[in-house]
Amino acid sequence: MIIITRPDISDAELDHIRERVESAGLHTHLSRGEHRTIIGCIGDEARLAEIPLRSLPGVESVVPVLKPYKRASREFSVDRTVVAIGDRARIGGNAITVIAGPCSVENREMLLETAMAVRGAGATILRGGAFKPRSSPYSFQGLGREALRLLAEVRHASGLPVVTEVLDTRDVDLVAEHADMLQVGARNMQNFALLAELGRVQRPILLKRGLSATITELLMAHGNTDVVLCERGIRTFERATRNTLDVSAIPVLKRETHLPVIVDPSHAGGDAELVAPLAFAGIAAGADGLIIEVHPEPESALSDGDQSLAPPAFVALMARLGAFAAAAGRTMAAPVRDAELAGTAA
Amino acid sequence: MIIITRPDISDAELDHIRERVESAGLHTHLSRGEHRTIIGCIGDEARLAEIPLRSLPGVESVVPVLKPYKRASREFSVDRTVVAIGDRARIGGNAITVIAGPCSVENREMLLETAMAVRGAGATILRGGAFKPRSSPYSFQGLGREALRLLAEVRHASGLPVVTEVLDTRDVDLVAEHADMLQVGARNMQNFALLAELGRVQRPILLKRGLSATITELLMAHGNTDVVLCERGIRTFERATRNTLDVSAIPVLKRETHLPVIVDPSHAGGDAELVAPLAFAGIAAGADGLIIEVHPEPESALSDGDQSLAPPAFVALMARLGAFAAAAGRTMAAPVRDAELAGTAA
Amino acid sequence: MIIITRPDISDAELDHIRERVESAGLHTHLSRGEHRTIIGCIGDEARLAEIPLRSLPGVESVVPVLKPYKRASREFSVDRTVVAIGDRARIGGNAITVIAGPCSVENREMLLETAMAVRGAGATILRGGAFKPRSSPYSFQGLGREALRLLAEVRHASGLPVVTEVLDTRDVDLVAEHADMLQVGARNMQNFALLAELGRVQRPILLKRGLSATITELLMAHGNTDVVLCERGIRTFERATRNTLDVSAIPVLKRETHLPVIVDPSHAGGDAELVAPLAFAGIAAGADGLIIEVHPEPESALSDGDQSLAPPAFVALMARLGAFAAAAGRTMAAPVRDAELAGTAA
Amino acid sequence: MIIITRPDISDAELDHIRERVESAGLHTHLSRGEHRTIIGCIGDEARLAEIPLRSLPGVESVVPVLKPYKRASREFSVDRTVVAIGDRARIGGNAITVIAGPCSVENREMLLETAMAVRGAGATILRGGAFKPRSSPYSFQGLGREALRLLAEVRHASGLPVVTEVLDTRDVDLVAEHADMLQVGARNMQNFALLAELGRVQRPILLKRGLSATITELLMAHGNTDVVLCERGIRTFERATRNTLDVSAIPVLKRETHLPVIVDPSHAGGDAELVAPLAFAGIAAGADGLIIEVHPEPESALSDGDQSLAPPAFVALMARLGAFAAAAGRTMAAPVRDAELAGTAA
Repeated sequence: MIIITRPDISDAELDHIRERVESAGLHTHLSRGEHRTIIGCIGDEARLAEIPLRSLPGVESVVPVLKPYKRASREFSVDRTVVAIGDRARIGGNAITVIAGPCSVENREMLLETAMAVRGAGATILRGGAFKPRSSPYSFQGLGREALRLLAEVRHASGLPVVTEVLDTRDVDLVAEHADMLQVGARNMQNFALLAELGRVQRPILLKRGLSATITELLMAHGNTDVVLCERGIRTFERATRNTLDVSAIPVLKRETHLPVIVDPSHAGGDAELVAPLAFAGIAAGADGLIIEVHPEPESALSDGDQSLAPPAFVALMARLGAFAAAAGRTMAAPVRDAELAGTAA
Repeated sequence: MIIITRPDISDAELDHIRERVESAGLHTHLSRGEHRTIIGCIGDEARLAEIPLRSLPGVESVVPVLKPYKRASREFSVDRTVVAIGDRARIGGNAITVIAGPCSVENREMLLETAMAVRGAGATILRGGAFKPRSSPYSFQGLGREALRLLAEVRHASGLPVVTEVLDTRDVDLVAEHADMLQVGARNMQNFALLAELGRVQRPILLKRGLSATITELLMAHGNTDVVLCERGIRTFERATRNTLDVSAIPVLKRETHLPVIVDPSHAGGDAELVAPLAFAGIAAGADGLIIEVHPEPESALSDGDQSLAPPAFVALMARLGAFAAAAGRTMAAPVRDAELAGTAA
Repeated sequence: MIIITRPDISDAELDHIRERVESAGLHTHLSRGEHRTIIGCIGDEARLAEIPLRSLPGVESVVPVLKPYKRASREFSVDRTVVAIGDRARIGGNAITVIAGPCSVENREMLLETAMAVRGAGATILRGGAFKPRSSPYSFQGLGREALRLLAEVRHASGLPVVTEVLDTRDVDLVAEHADMLQVGARNMQNFALLAELGRVQRPILLKRGLSATITELLMAHGNTDVVLCERGIRTFERATRNTLDVSAIPVLKRETHLPVIVDPSHAGGDAELVAPLAFAGIAAGADGLIIEVHPEPESALSDGDQSLAPPAFVALMARLGAFAAAAGRTMAAPVRDAELAGTAA
Repeated sequence: MIIITRPDISDAELDHIRERVESAGLHTHLSRGEHRTIIGCIGDEARLAEIPLRSLPGVESVVPVLKPYKRASREFSVDRTVVAIGDRARIGGNAITVIAGPCSVENREMLLETAMAVRGAGATILRGGAFKPRSSPYSFQGLGREALRLLAEVRHASGLPVVTEVLDTRDVDLVAEHADMLQVGARNMQNFALLAELGRVQRPILLKRGLSATITELLMAHGNTDVVLCERGIRTFERATRNTLDVSAIPVLKRETHLPVIVDPSHAGGDAELVAPLAFAGIAAGADGLIIEVHPEPESALSDGDQSLAPPAFVALMARLGAFAAAAGRTMAAPVRDAELAGTAA
């Protein structure tokens, strides 16, 4: 931590600042310039986090030296983390992983049909909402417990591991029983009560960036190592798209963290026509995977129909994705083979 | 709802759109212009909310005619709502109400000292955090249950009703037992699981605007009538202040809703020096009250010390506030009198 | 300037960074922490501005110690600047100054009628657009030279000094002949070719904050001392209002600079109903004045009719403004008296 | 245009609105719903642009039906425009065009060296700043006229057509004499005085999106057909990168306009390390080209050194770009061949 003092600081104020810092167990180091005196604080910066340094008389500003995120930092882990999702899929490493499925689980037929379609096209993880966060309390909130049962059933039938969102601390155990990966949605990125509950269950987490969360806040948000980060668009002044995909966040995150980073082109653009170009851009920028909404009949979807792809559009996207993955020096994650599936079913 | 179609729409596409709308129980009404055909949808717009109209072939854009918020709308209630907080305070009506107290409840002494100081200066409601939402999981998370007990004790001693935040659905009953008003923080503005739980208990709600929530989203967020809305700054590109107080939201909200609107100048600016000017600006723009962080010794505060006022600064602010209230044609809410307090204690 | 280095920096890289800084005439000062080495750069920071320090190997980040704005800084001038506009008006000091008039000068009658109306209500400076910056090239661009002639004529008739915008370097001399104060619009805040031309003519400048300019950029934008800064709303995600009035910018600017600061509530809200509450909020937050659009018949205005006040609404606003000024410990600027006017005309 | 009226509108108000619309030569068409009456305005919407409809009594909101941009719209031109830059380069069509060169022209040697390096790597147009827009008046402003002379000289030597920015209406003719394409920078996107001057000279324009300009505003900004649009990042709350590349703008622009669209990954990220991933993302999203800053020795650059690539890094980027272009179904623009060059020199 570096403390920049005001030009008119008194010696007593300077001493008081140093005492506060030193009482937290750090050393201080003065550097007097022509206009300002700078106080370098040497030691464990985290101990200063709770001291309101800016409120001390004579302080003009405070500059952290170390990154405030620890476990997500590349200094914490030199090797990039590969997160296993069930025993048939992974996110991270050299292969590009695609998660696909409906926004909401509406019934058994549509879920199974979608699962088989996305698996056929190369997706290796199934998504499907049981509990839905909505922008209006009047909207469809998901089938809940019944949807979890259907997800487990279709997981078995398709061999695809399943990711679904958990919204409420009371549902964590229930959801963890039925899903291979638990999603923390954009609105809950800093819901530490929920994140703490998730820390108890042994499931990897898909952590979506908050609508107005900085990259630093995303990196600070979790304490787990089995986390996949997801860029899904931020809110800006531009309204031609639902959100603004912050494609630059991908290379920045890949530089800062050892965790895998995927992109959600469905929510970012909010428009089915934009899913493919945003998916390609995400992979070109270095993402490790995608999460895409697919619905057998988007215009009848109970939620997010405007941004869902029908299976043929998803197949077309996947057919083109390999070339972008190859251009990025990546492969596509190997699909689940029926043989494997039969093996586990036996 | 008005549907604007693409210039090249076919008759079959037009018919299909009309069928979808009419199958939801509305009537349609065509208006053919030189370049576009417009479809007016007459009837209950809410029934269209779940149909992904933009995904229908031939649709260019969809324009809602009615406000998407119902219960908050001034059309729902002609009279402005006055919310009672316990039996000694109100928010709404002609008087300006000030809520004040520490960011976090740290111990009995500091809470009581602060309560007496803010009451002496004219605040009529006490705030104090028991469960703290933080931007980092490494930060102080509040004293929890113990803080609730202290709030109840100081409520009795000071005669001030109490507002505190609830973060987790599992804590709603517990918090409702100890507090007169429950705060839903900015990060939970659209946490409908939490809001649904709050609908069960008979307590007024202080609903803070999300960091990147639009005014419309704030108005859509709740289904209760005993709600006080709070503007507390939004996230913008400007970083000279922690957030950007959207002072224009105050007159817009007062025009759109019957609910009371207050301002949080402490979180908006994130800087003790900015609290007074932002408080005055909020009242001048038409707010019904303020919520302000006060700490006996801000530089020792366990949270938000940078933006907390010491009691003398709060007294000075209150001394000047009356003139702004008067300029706005308002009075200051009558303080809790000891006589009243003795009466209830008897 | 403080340079924070990467954890893995080599000695050669460290030496190279120091050489680059010292070659610019500054001294360096090392501070080795547990994880990072910090290089303090002591001397004239401006000399480092052109060196791309972040591109030097081993540099993680660069933190300026001094404010990048010099002439606007309060360290440059201890006393607050009062800017004289012609010989009958001032901005700055204890009095609140109101500038009012039409968005565009449309003809002689409307300009004179508006001038007399706003003068009668207490405005002491007349605004009126001759050259209009528009968001579309298809919109009304202003009467240009003819409008300048009308402004000069009405200035004489009303005794009100005149402010008008200049858009093009080629027009600076012409506009300076006809106006007492030259406005640099939000879109030109960083148009240094235009600002350089304005530096040549002896006229005070009204510098409007750019739509996406930070407070720091506003303070860096000018090299003159006779400048009045104007907060007029920034662009954010919120679209209920045309722009978001950054009311916090007022106290921040008053702390950082000796220059006067005014508010434009007409452009900030883009809505006639919002002008009064935003004007009051601006004064409550500490602004030195206002600039308000007034039109004899807003619904017939050739530009900005939606946000213009009719004279009765402006009179009503001014009638209430004094109480807010008094609450802020300010007076209203003394009006131009006919006696003075006659005196100068004689 | 559709006018949505207030629920309590009177018949007289309704009549008055219709009269105003009809007096502009349009027809009106009423549609009475349960809660609101809607007025459809049929005819030339542009005629309504100057009427402040929102200020008419009884109007709640106004919804345009047609896109406000005309010449840029795909309805204006079914075929995509290909813009010729000098006689050796084009932007648009199936090939990807790369513009590269230094931020500022610093001297003859560095310009020639850079031109030869970028040409060797496959760039077909040279960029170089003569007049520099800066965020501070204290920064290097460019060599001006001397830089134009050097650009012309190196254009001849390298065979690369040249693009350079023009900032001031007084410089338009001068710059047009020396350059093949004139750049309008982000700060001047809505400088209609400058754009009008550019309309006089026969040169294609590179129009950069303003820092806070919407896609719609970008499309409205020009009246010319020989325009190339450039996405270069917008300002958002995220500060990990200088700007936020709005990669979604690329497919949206390609859908809305017939004009070519390129990406500036250097300004978007403001960081040399981000140039390649953002360049690849831009091409993957459908851009027609790139503009990239290259400097022989970035750490000595007089401007933008932090984001400039050294020639080897540019060569590496270009070596990988072809695979992304191919994945997008595109080719790379054919390089200038020495034979052609010799031919013209002869």
